[in-house]
Amino acid sequence: MLNLKFDYLPSNLQEKLQQGPDSQGIEALEWLFDPKTAKNLPLGWFDWPLKDHKALIEDIKAAAAQIRSNSKVLVVIGIGGSYLGAKALYDALTPSFKKSEENTELVFAGHNLSSEYLLSLNQYLQDKDFSLCVISKSGTTLEPALAFRYLFNLLVQRYGMTVALERLFLITDPEKGVLRELAGQNEISAFSVPVDIGGRYSVLTAVGLLPLAVAGFQIEKILKGAAQARNDFDRAENTAKAALNYAIIRHYFYQQGKVVELFVSHQPRLKMLAEWFKQLFAESEGKEGKGLLPVSLLYSTDLHSLGQFVQEGNPIFFETVLDIKTEKTDLNVATGFFDDGLSYLEGKTMNFVQNQAFLGTVQAHVEGNVANLIIQLDELSEYSLGYLTYFFMLACALSGKILGVNPFDQPGVEAYKSNMYKLLKN
Amino acid sequence: MLNLKFDYLPSNLQEKLQQGPDSQGIEALEWLFDPKTAKNLPLGWFDWPLKDHKALIEDIKAAAAQIRSNSKVLVVIGIGGSYLGAKALYDALTPSFKKSEENTELVFAGHNLSSEYLLSLNQYLQDKDFSLCVISKSGTTLEPALAFRYLFNLLVQRYGMTVALERLFLITDPEKGVLRELAGQNEISAFSVPVDIGGRYSVLTAVGLLPLAVAGFQIEKILKGAAQARNDFDRAENTAKAALNYAIIRHYFYQQGKVVELFVSHQPRLKMLAEWFKQLFAESEGKEGKGLLPVSLLYSTDLHSLGQFVQEGNPIFFETVLDIKTEKTDLNVATGFFDDGLSYLEGKTMNFVQNQAFLGTVQAHVEGNVANLIIQLDELSEYSLGYLTYFFMLACALSGKILGVNPFDQPGVEAYKSNMYKLLKN
Repeated sequence: MLNLKFDYLPSNLQEKLQQGPDSQGIEALEWLFDPKTAKNLPLGWFDWPLKDHKALIEDIKAAAAQIRSNSKVLVVIGIGGSYLGAKALYDALTPSFKKSEENTELVFAGHNLSSEYLLSLNQYLQDKDFSLCVISKSGTTLEPALAFRYLFNLLVQRYGMTVALERLFLITDPEKGVLRELAGQNEISAFSVPVDIGGRYSVLTAVGLLPLAVAGFQIEKILKGAAQARNDFDRAENTAKAALNYAIIRHYFYQQGKVVELFVSHQPRLKMLAEWFKQLFAESEGKEGKGLLPVSLLYSTDLHSLGQFVQEGNPIFFETVLDIKTEKTDLNVATGFFDDGLSYLEGKTMNFVQNQAFLGTVQAHVEGNVANLIIQLDELSEYSLGYLTYFFMLACALSGKILGVNPFDQPGVEAYKSNMYKLLKN
Repeated sequence: MLNLKFDYLPSNLQEKLQQGPDSQGIEALEWLFDPKTAKNLPLGWFDWPLKDHKALIEDIKAAAAQIRSNSKVLVVIGIGGSYLGAKALYDALTPSFKKSEENTELVFAGHNLSSEYLLSLNQYLQDKDFSLCVISKSGTTLEPALAFRYLFNLLVQRYGMTVALERLFLITDPEKGVLRELAGQNEISAFSVPVDIGGRYSVLTAVGLLPLAVAGFQIEKILKGAAQARNDFDRAENTAKAALNYAIIRHYFYQQGKVVELFVSHQPRLKMLAEWFKQLFAESEGKEGKGLLPVSLLYSTDLHSLGQFVQEGNPIFFETVLDIKTEKTDLNVATGFFDDGLSYLEGKTMNFVQNQAFLGTVQAHVEGNVANLIIQLDELSEYSLGYLTYFFMLACALSGKILGVNPFDQPGVEAYKSNMYKLLKN
């Protein structure tokens, strides 16, 4: 399902990987499996795919069926880890343009403070039945809380309070917080973010699965893919554990002064997956003055933008390239009505062209001394994306441990919040 | 219209700026105004806003009126500088959700090699009248050329050849290249990319203006804003030339080992403006192993993603924050139906909240030793965006000169192309 390709890495790094994990790598591995770790840190995501989720899936499907039966749009309110996972997989699996008539559309809100965004969303919803899904552990985070206020008013105006409460779905702390209280007092459908799973590790819980089920995707397959990733990790020899190798590669480059990781994909639909990736790694590792800064690029679009810099600019980065092995769609190169010098491509397909562009780029960058790690994923599907997201979470935990930080906290996020709340109360 | 705010820069840099440009800065200034420079380098964009463009504007308006009269969608085919400027301004001035019924929608293609993208676009166009605008100097760049083949076939199928040619608009080299030939042979409407204006400096030519006129924007105001930026630059004392100061600040940080520039905005609609900015600076400066890597962030969205890294991670960056002084829309904080702890904000507006979040973030980052340069723009309008884009082009030319590179070439973009064409011909 997923294959790390080392061919374009520096030869000394390839040799290092063949020798198997160093002491830091072994230590990180032991730490991850040590039951004491789970006692002290929010490691719930680690065994999550191995657990029996039948009841949860049934509950999610029931809620999704209800929303699908009466809503053209589900507005998902959340910020950071509360929306990035669902948005990443939704975009990856949804056509670039066409909105399906069959499925309920997902629209995201509560991840900014823009009045224009809310006003425009209001216009958009004017002729569409909708429901709300609010995703917030505390229920008091500023951006989603203010969007919830605005959109719940809209919902009540449209349907009246009784029906509005039926069209409201909460995903929050299992026991405490204002949303949990709200749910208890009003019999609102509510799902839990497990207490031992942090926001950026939550895509495989209801946080990701409810919106995706509403959008018509097969959520069991997402979980199955994740379980496969976990099983592959457990079964592989230490030298062949892909997530560990990826963590070791990242740390190697970091120590070589490559301070930026360019996360590259070739699919326009993977833009938000890159955003999810950036949050996962930046928030897990960017602390104590450390960490690789994750930056996302989309090729070949960005070859005509940042490509010059990648090829010849300040060499402060390495590339991690996500390659999708098999595309579901293809097209023949269209016939030309005039001479554009490309007639030799007639009879070829767009995927052939895309693949040659991919190879040409890798070669050019390697010739320009830009190291390339290729992560090849078999296809884009619910299963493969479950596999991939779990793979990245595994790698991120190991990578953070090797870097010597706690990959599960985010003390720096509080700094702007506390300043902001002070200013807001003035 | 535009104001550089130095308050959150390191004090020694503030002092340096008060003393006026150093010898490198003066040299860059003289170089820009030296007529010899324009003889050797594509400097056509520099005096462009000062020229009389009445005839061009009338031609563009006539073409735009024709497209608006018969097309629900204009598909703009281009990559890199051939689409980023139009897309940046289109997004900045268009509501986040609602597609206007009055205006022709712009859809972009030819900036990727995805078959899925084209197939999905085909579906999207099925029930909409459309025209094509192809933007390419050479006409042979792979991505737009293949998209043009596909979409022109679609156009011919829909309308027949005669009408398809009437629905085709070309923006290309004034004299040579396959698109210019095509125009000459078939009486197709064609506009020029001036030979002395490179792709990433072309937003103020027909490349940006035709699509924006089709979308219903006032293109004279864009040019007027740019002319104002140029006049302000000419009239200001050297110590007060904003574009020069910005170039000097960038170079100062670069020399201090800040290898990444975080370009930050607070408006979801400015995402593509950041992409335009990234191309301008990355392609102009990323050469000879040099350059600041431009990275874009959207706050407060990304405070819950990369915010942790900015606050406490590897301090390899500085922030350039684009602040919009006056928003056109605002909203009162909505009343709450239950206690989310935010009732003290009732009676305040979303823009107040946004502004306090902005200030809280700047303070938190400065306390965390992240230097902040604030570029304050009065508003988001055609005029202000003309001003801003010209300001950035000025600053980029000066910055490249100070860095010691040619800010107008892109030798590294050829590397992947030549590899790719070799592979494609195999």
